[in-house]
Amino acid sequence: MRRVLCDRLPQKNDTVELPVLESNHLIQVLRLDPETPFELLDGSGHYVTAVWERHGKSVVARALQQPQTDSTRLSVPLQLMMGLLKGDAMEWVVEKAVELGVRQLTPILHEFTVVRVEKKGPEQIQSRLQKIADQSLKQCGRLDRLQIATPLDFYSATLSLSAGAHYVCDEIREGKTLITELRSRPLPTPQPVTLWVGPEGGFSPKERQEVMRNPALIRCHLGPLILRAETAAIAACAQLQGIFYEHRNT
Amino acid sequence: MRRVLCDRLPQKNDTVELPVLESNHLIQVLRLDPETPFELLDGSGHYVTAVWERHGKSVVARALQQPQTDSTRLSVPLQLMMGLLKGDAMEWVVEKAVELGVRQLTPILHEFTVVRVEKKGPEQIQSRLQKIADQSLKQCGRLDRLQIATPLDFYSATLSLSAGAHYVCDEIREGKTLITELRSRPLPTPQPVTLWVGPEGGFSPKERQEVMRNPALIRCHLGPLILRAETAAIAACAQLQGIFYEHRNT
Repeated sequence: MRRVLCDRLPQKNDTVELPVLESNHLIQVLRLDPETPFELLDGSGHYVTAVWERHGKSVVARALQQPQTDSTRLSVPLQLMMGLLKGDAMEWVVEKAVELGVRQLTPILHEFTVVRVEKKGPEQIQSRLQKIADQSLKQCGRLDRLQIATPLDFYSATLSLSAGAHYVCDEIREGKTLITELRSRPLPTPQPVTLWVGPEGGFSPKERQEVMRNPALIRCHLGPLILRAETAAIAACAQLQGIFYEHRNT
Repeated sequence: MRRVLCDRLPQKNDTVELPVLESNHLIQVLRLDPETPFELLDGSGHYVTAVWERHGKSVVARALQQPQTDSTRLSVPLQLMMGLLKGDAMEWVVEKAVELGVRQLTPILHEFTVVRVEKKGPEQIQSRLQKIADQSLKQCGRLDRLQIATPLDFYSATLSLSAGAHYVCDEIREGKTLITELRSRPLPTPQPVTLWVGPEGGFSPKERQEVMRNPALIRCHLGPLILRAETAAIAACAQLQGIFYEHRNT
């Protein structure tokens, strides 16, 4: 079923005006006819099945049911501090992060980051990645948006750590694996778990020193294989997802 | 360091002629000069550092050391029976499967497979995916090739199961997760573990029936999130990798 994002959901039989970009895409690109239901999402965990109608110059969605939620389609308390990658790779990470239930993703500017952020501007990067996240949301049926935060440099990020455990997936293999570290700590917890994955060149020596110095950052690795940064991110999220689910269901 | 594939590795100070495609790529595309060492791989787990020289019309590699191996850069006994996907998605799975240490990948033709195999021909598909696997090998530093098998239809594949455990990752969430199933069985074992992931449309009802009927196939799922087929494949491999490594090192 096609999915559309809209800030506010209508009650059963009521209507809400659709954003122009969404209605254009639905009608002109997807060519959905007025009889075919679609799923309207508010991006905050609620959905409603609806059909579209023209009201004068606007397009509205009419709800066929009461708005509802489905806890199996929500994110998990997992945050990803992702080294900003060049090109398609960052978009893939965002897309897969949506599927894997990551709640928030912050692009991190590392010493070895290749992308020139001053030129593009951090807000532009945030906005572009948010669009990709929303697109992936609609395609995979998740109900709450992956929040893309404004890009932040590594040291600023380490000075403003959110609550919960922080696992830094270092490409240098010292200490324990992510899975071993996860298993040795109590789960579940309402606090989020945060994963840090470096950029293409990995963490710089100075950044690594900060990770080792900062008691709130748990340094770990993903095993012996050499993984591209985007693969490391997805592998780590998948491993965490698996452990989360196991804890919640056993 | 650049990597080059060649069937046979020279002993220290000896030379071996490079395949034309490889030498062209090294010299004309990568513009590697004769003083800069590269890594020569045989694709079976051995490597040697070498430099190139011209010998008449051919290009040879001269070994700077004895051929060696590195067990941390080898695959793990993990096989992937992957529903053949349309477009880039299959290439992406192959690329990531190399990074994640998958030993062999068999494209599987399911009832819901979209790709038209008769037109392209199974050998062409195998050959194209093998090239992508070899390219990924060179980029990520793994030493032994990901073997891409010739595409096989689902029922034929279920009639010729290899030794070891077979986990079928169903998109319908019944029974236990992959991780729970993995943890409840003894590891490590010299026998391979085989993961089955369906195509875009998932397993058909008939295929699902066969999975449930066949005692050698362990049906499981990847948790509550809806994953694209390619994401499911990589998530499952990453989870398995994590569990494998934990077993071998604790």
